[in-house]
Amino acid sequence: MNIAEEKISEFSIDCFKKVGMKEVDAKIITETMLVADYRGIHSHGFIRLPIYIERIKKGFINVNAVIKSVKESTSLTLMDGDYGAGQVVAKSAMLNSIKKAKEYGLGLTIVKNGNHFGIAGYYSHLATKENMIGLAISNAEALMPAVGGAEKVIGNNPVSIAAPNHNKRNPLVLDMALSNVALGKILVAEKKGDTIPNGWGVDENGQTTNNPSEVVNGGFLSPVGGPKGFGLALLTEVLTGVISGGDFSKTIPTMYGLEEKQSISYFMLALDTSFFMEKEDYEQRMNMLSSFVKDSKKAPGVEETFLPGELEFKREKENEIKGVPIDENVFEELRKLAESLEVEFKF
Amino acid sequence: MNIAEEKISEFSIDCFKKVGMKEVDAKIITETMLVADYRGIHSHGFIRLPIYIERIKKGFINVNAVIKSVKESTSLTLMDGDYGAGQVVAKSAMLNSIKKAKEYGLGLTIVKNGNHFGIAGYYSHLATKENMIGLAISNAEALMPAVGGAEKVIGNNPVSIAAPNHNKRNPLVLDMALSNVALGKILVAEKKGDTIPNGWGVDENGQTTNNPSEVVNGGFLSPVGGPKGFGLALLTEVLTGVISGGDFSKTIPTMYGLEEKQSISYFMLALDTSFFMEKEDYEQRMNMLSSFVKDSKKAPGVEETFLPGELEFKREKENEIKGVPIDENVFEELRKLAESLEVEFKF
Repeated sequence: MNIAEEKISEFSIDCFKKVGMKEVDAKIITETMLVADYRGIHSHGFIRLPIYIERIKKGFINVNAVIKSVKESTSLTLMDGDYGAGQVVAKSAMLNSIKKAKEYGLGLTIVKNGNHFGIAGYYSHLATKENMIGLAISNAEALMPAVGGAEKVIGNNPVSIAAPNHNKRNPLVLDMALSNVALGKILVAEKKGDTIPNGWGVDENGQTTNNPSEVVNGGFLSPVGGPKGFGLALLTEVLTGVISGGDFSKTIPTMYGLEEKQSISYFMLALDTSFFMEKEDYEQRMNMLSSFVKDSKKAPGVEETFLPGELEFKREKENEIKGVPIDENVFEELRKLAESLEVEFKF
Repeated sequence: MNIAEEKISEFSIDCFKKVGMKEVDAKIITETMLVADYRGIHSHGFIRLPIYIERIKKGFINVNAVIKSVKESTSLTLMDGDYGAGQVVAKSAMLNSIKKAKEYGLGLTIVKNGNHFGIAGYYSHLATKENMIGLAISNAEALMPAVGGAEKVIGNNPVSIAAPNHNKRNPLVLDMALSNVALGKILVAEKKGDTIPNGWGVDENGQTTNNPSEVVNGGFLSPVGGPKGFGLALLTEVLTGVISGGDFSKTIPTMYGLEEKQSISYFMLALDTSFFMEKEDYEQRMNMLSSFVKDSKKAPGVEETFLPGELEFKREKENEIKGVPIDENVFEELRKLAESLEVEFKF
């Protein structure tokens, strides 16, 4: 089903306000979920509203967080998110990096004591609006084993890199998790009775399986490209949780366990393209790179080759007309949430 | 065969000097090839000596390069490598980033007009010796098609991230190319008459193939993880060749074509761990992360789980005792090189 943007946004903001969040912060979280559903990244859309509310009620997400800089040099900042909502902390961090990059060409903010921040692409995209390249990384609770392992030791950490593009093109926005595929894809295969290819996941003993149920029931997601993805996950963990002083790897409590607060960390970098060249030169070079991809020879049956984020922006544009696409089960969860919070459900 | 380090190093340095390179620069290139062969990354070992010499003779690698900073802020530098040897330019860039990071916690040097720099892990590793995290990226001539494409549009750009480790452990050194596997692996499968799994490469029409010969003869390597690796390759291209003002994507001439000089670009970042915490705290956190991986439950038949770079350091240590492992065909090429350069071949 498709819901009017104003309606679902208002509802989401009402829910957050009901549990004590400031309207300005509620708007930020709501916007990231909205953008996620518009772009078709439903795993990070309004499906997350109930768990965020639940964690606020438990006191694990601090609605009165005072986000502050712990240490600062010219381009570099270590920030403490004070256990605030991930989206609020992460946006604040990227805006800090952008501010630094305006002055010094480069800004890097590393943050501890955040929470789940939604889609990484939201933050890297912020940089592109200032003609900057953005890089956003978060760590996440451990989900994947080491290569050859049979125990969760590393998150499928999200990594996003975005670069401004012009000539009527969207910015390039790569937004990926470091697992080979999302758990959702494996759940779909299970539902359909399909097998899954080697490399998507392993069973509870850490052995390769083509049976999606064995991954879902006690098994594990596998890193993208085996040792390459595992290495990237481990080194992004160093760049976030280890270096920030926050939780990392197995020390991160699970979000849905609802037992403890998390200290999630981010790495937010902004690099000003205008430090390097005139805007026109950058535009021309990006246009050339984009055209190499778009105009390249295609394999038989392939009509179009896509730039990173291109399909998501296309979906976003379509959905902005049709309304926010919400799964019926999610809608039902939201209805229940409205009831339990005694917030009006005006749909 | 295994050759004494001093002998092969001396020979390599003699060759470079014979074509006009300064000894100090010849030593740097030689060291990167030596380390590559020691670590078992033979594709970037002394096998490359003849092509480097050839490109110097053609004037494509400038032995009199004056590497200079084009623009500088506190943490950020745009550097011009003046078409010098990749290893000399790249090392100079990483040392510049390290110097900046000592002062500001963070250093990023983006370089144009370099050449092929050997193993990326050599440069990120330099940072770890100063208790810093290092990130080294280079672009490379186009080798891979877009997803669904049948034409080379992007390099299998090397990416290395390294972090200091302690407690008698080696630093974590992730050193990877953004193709799913190296061409060498496909050549080995071809030789053995084996099939290759989906995802390693495509044929000349861009279609998935399990026949290694179809990849080797007119086909293409595939990016690691499909759209994820393709996206990373494209965005690392932006972070190197596009933003530096150097060559990028299809505008990079091939190294072995010997027709034109290349302007290869690098992204060299150093991040000082001491900006964030006491050395002891960092050590303790890294030890915990490393132990999570090393001590994790194993899949049946798996004896050990490895940290990024661990196997390479193990090989390096073994080979330092046995001597530099050189393939006989490579040795023969070196002998021919000695003849053509009239350099003594004292093996």
